[in-house]
Amino acid sequence: MTPACTVGLDYGTNSVRAVVVDCGNGRTVGTGVFDYQSGERGVIVDAGDPHLARQNPADYVAGLREATLGALHEAEGVDGFAREHVVGIGVDTTGSTPLPVDARCQPLAFDSRWKDDPAAHAWLWKDHTSAEEAAEITEVATRHAPQYLAPIGGTYSSEWFWSKVWHCLNVAPHVFEAAASWVELADFVPAVLSSVTEPRDIVRCVCAAGHKAMYSRDWGGLPSKGFLARLDPRLADLRDRLYEEALPPQLPAGRLSAVWGRELGLPVGIPIAMGGFDAHYGAVGAGVAPGTLVKIIGTSTCDITVAPTSEPIDDVPGICGIVDGSVMNGYYGIEAGQSAVGDLLHWWVEGVCEGDDTLHGRLSDEAARLRPGASGLLALDWNNGNRTVLVDPRLTGLILGQTLRTGRADVYRALMESTAFGARVIVERLAECGVPIDRIVCCGGIAARNELFMQIYADVLGRPMLLAGSPQTPALGAAISAAVAAGAEAGGYESFEEAQKRMTSLRDERFHPDPGASAVYDELFAMYRELHDSFGGVTAAEADFPTLMKRLLALRRRATG
Amino acid sequence: MTPACTVGLDYGTNSVRAVVVDCGNGRTVGTGVFDYQSGERGVIVDAGDPHLARQNPADYVAGLREATLGALHEAEGVDGFAREHVVGIGVDTTGSTPLPVDARCQPLAFDSRWKDDPAAHAWLWKDHTSAEEAAEITEVATRHAPQYLAPIGGTYSSEWFWSKVWHCLNVAPHVFEAAASWVELADFVPAVLSSVTEPRDIVRCVCAAGHKAMYSRDWGGLPSKGFLARLDPRLADLRDRLYEEALPPQLPAGRLSAVWGRELGLPVGIPIAMGGFDAHYGAVGAGVAPGTLVKIIGTSTCDITVAPTSEPIDDVPGICGIVDGSVMNGYYGIEAGQSAVGDLLHWWVEGVCEGDDTLHGRLSDEAARLRPGASGLLALDWNNGNRTVLVDPRLTGLILGQTLRTGRADVYRALMESTAFGARVIVERLAECGVPIDRIVCCGGIAARNELFMQIYADVLGRPMLLAGSPQTPALGAAISAAVAAGAEAGGYESFEEAQKRMTSLRDERFHPDPGASAVYDELFAMYRELHDSFGGVTAAEADFPTLMKRLLALRRRATG
Repeated sequence: MTPACTVGLDYGTNSVRAVVVDCGNGRTVGTGVFDYQSGERGVIVDAGDPHLARQNPADYVAGLREATLGALHEAEGVDGFAREHVVGIGVDTTGSTPLPVDARCQPLAFDSRWKDDPAAHAWLWKDHTSAEEAAEITEVATRHAPQYLAPIGGTYSSEWFWSKVWHCLNVAPHVFEAAASWVELADFVPAVLSSVTEPRDIVRCVCAAGHKAMYSRDWGGLPSKGFLARLDPRLADLRDRLYEEALPPQLPAGRLSAVWGRELGLPVGIPIAMGGFDAHYGAVGAGVAPGTLVKIIGTSTCDITVAPTSEPIDDVPGICGIVDGSVMNGYYGIEAGQSAVGDLLHWWVEGVCEGDDTLHGRLSDEAARLRPGASGLLALDWNNGNRTVLVDPRLTGLILGQTLRTGRADVYRALMESTAFGARVIVERLAECGVPIDRIVCCGGIAARNELFMQIYADVLGRPMLLAGSPQTPALGAAISAAVAAGAEAGGYESFEEAQKRMTSLRDERFHPDPGASAVYDELFAMYRELHDSFGGVTAAEADFPTLMKRLLALRRRATG
Repeated sequence: MTPACTVGLDYGTNSVRAVVVDCGNGRTVGTGVFDYQSGERGVIVDAGDPHLARQNPADYVAGLREATLGALHEAEGVDGFAREHVVGIGVDTTGSTPLPVDARCQPLAFDSRWKDDPAAHAWLWKDHTSAEEAAEITEVATRHAPQYLAPIGGTYSSEWFWSKVWHCLNVAPHVFEAAASWVELADFVPAVLSSVTEPRDIVRCVCAAGHKAMYSRDWGGLPSKGFLARLDPRLADLRDRLYEEALPPQLPAGRLSAVWGRELGLPVGIPIAMGGFDAHYGAVGAGVAPGTLVKIIGTSTCDITVAPTSEPIDDVPGICGIVDGSVMNGYYGIEAGQSAVGDLLHWWVEGVCEGDDTLHGRLSDEAARLRPGASGLLALDWNNGNRTVLVDPRLTGLILGQTLRTGRADVYRALMESTAFGARVIVERLAECGVPIDRIVCCGGIAARNELFMQIYADVLGRPMLLAGSPQTPALGAAISAAVAAGAEAGGYESFEEAQKRMTSLRDERFHPDPGASAVYDELFAMYRELHDSFGGVTAAEADFPTLMKRLLALRRRATG
């Protein structure tokens, strides 16, 4: 092997994974995984509030050590590897996953006063407790600062930074008051590795800042204090304790500290790459480029593409974000997503059928024998809300067409199809707004494992589904970011494009659309759009369907309140 | 015990039950049950067509013997009973369940030429293969003979006599040609007991004729030959091989033949009461009276009330039928119904969760701990179509409001609630049309066994749910009809009212509405109405929801065709 290696750390929803990657060819030479220990598979939940999802920052730090040591240990079994060959570390994480820290950059959750308070923990991407705050931010910005919303799809989400921080202020003011600053997990991990001890020294990536915190150089960074004061004066005060500038991913976020160098047995001072979201670095690891959409299909889905900053592009309504440099420098990073994909199938198999992985296999086999349209079912894939293009976390699921003979495999397939229809809505919206897609590369757990799923996507989207060569594109992308941060002289690369050329690949296997199936799905998709637009509030109906799901949720809140 | 007894035979969907009842107090002194042997639990189905449901007439005859002998054998264990005390036999059955017979009144299915042809068997009530014929009958009648539709709710159903017979003519003309006549199961069983050998000697009850075959004295019996010829000239020819007159239930349909008297060990010549539908005789056994609605809650639900013929009543759109003398002489029998109630819960537990009876119990316990509205779910109870008030068998189910935390008990409760909302639509429609209901008496398997179900009904309907004293009201009602057919002199009664006074009762247990729950359900019901009216085609929406379920079914037909 070539001597230069990097470590990529991928912080997922249930675990953190570390890989050691050969900079010469992108090959993984060591892997370590640490399952978070807190809550339900790493997620702190609240029986009384299905929208709450938090994580214990202690899991992040323990995982940093355990997963990296595991990966290094495995790499040491490979001829030619040595820890001193590691030239950089890259990090990707879920997001927006902000956490409050104290004046020494320690998570508030580490403090015995707050350790049992969910508000002091990390607010996981899929926490939807801040719906009211998100709606109000959208309203205030629409009226007073529409420029803030233009690059993020026109609607501010309850999954994002300001909604969560503001909700904390509203429901747990003591935690808000105690926080010296708030940090995205993507910035927190590099800060830990660099042993940063002052909040103002934490380096912030433009990926999280631009996509989730309404940051842009166009208006001087974060939203103005005047704007924030309209929400709450204490948010305006917080702005001073956050950051003035966020940086693109080719720059290092820091250098490996002596403490962590010893802990991991790695060279002190090697660059820690700028953190980034899993989807963004996953896209890098899958070979994202102009015209290429990377779909990272797991519990949820992130769709990423890029467009050269040399040509201005339209804002795309409902798309999560268009941010200069958020994926690779020199390109707009364009992000969309679906809130539940694998989670929707997990919900059906585990939550409803109360089965396990073998049941996934059996239902998949059975569903594969059904022809498109044969289930008679049509579903809306909104059990976890709708991220793109409706940006409404408080939408809920719908299944229609059941008879007394409808079986679990019928529903399983209909749920898969519903996520494919949701994916098609996104691709059509991108094209409408001047970002045509001519190639789709899929990665993530479901893409790698479920052939039926990929075939349905090819048929519904009417184009081939390509598969990324790496089974761990986010971790690979993080490792690529480390290779770019290290630079060519150290054995890395001068640019993301050059690194991608050498370190990424496609699988030979690909899924081609079947014309007959595509024709049926065109019809089903038209019906999906009718339901989507009526219940999602795109079109007004005589019956007030646009509010129906919300009214049901309001009733539930009162019933369980 | 008093010396006079009657036998009541209740032909259900999966089995036939016989009871021996004491005419003095309505007490059951013997019971026998025979499970049908053919198909899936007695129902012949077709994997390729979920709408097909047939039965083997051999099961009816075998069941007649086995169930009656079983009941008599058990009665012989009771002091004072002897077979010669039996003064009459009554019969109730599912319906409309017509079967083709040959010139000797034998079912065509007994003929070796037809024994494997589902068209030659009995067309079970829930067979929905005739949707196109039903729609065309409705259309032709609306244009040329609206009077035929007025008493049956304005829409002719695919579950009914002429739809089924015409569908047989269309798909199995050889069977249609071979049939000397067609007989409702409710008329077939009395004909068997009386050993009738000529189709013209089969006595027809006004219950089946009036509710299902557009029979009325007002227009001289069955629909005119001119009308039938508009459908198909061969249907006009068939009219001559059916009947001129149908009779109300106080008259005997025949006398026990020597053959069957020997077979059963009962006195030859005792009256065989007019057959009737299970719901109608069930209502009699539950104490139906003006202002009292009897709900027979089983796999499906039948709702029956009566109104004195001395006062004219409006037609009630969407109600299955208003027929003079169909329940008791001197009253209009008014019938409504829901196509799937117990079946909806069975579908969920057995068809989807793949559980058994113990799972019903567990889900029921779990669902009982949920407060109204807490599931966040809303369902349409249309997995088997909608009988009242939409009269549309090709509607399908819908479940809305799922999150990733929705569990099987949430859905179980939402399905129960959806059937209660469906029940409320019926009661409100009756009141709107001048048939106010001040008392609801429930019977049937679910009413007797499921307290949660009954409480939800009380809460949703906002009034107490009373329970019939007998666990087998259809069989008791059939036995009451036999007591009336036998007359006072033989130890029976002169009228249904007198027989009901002595032979029916209510349970002490009843379910009272909880005002808090009722308030929540009022809100949920309003949302149910929105879905109901949009997807059921009552109101037009901007999106074309009234046709959505049909378009999905059309796709499915093509996909599976």
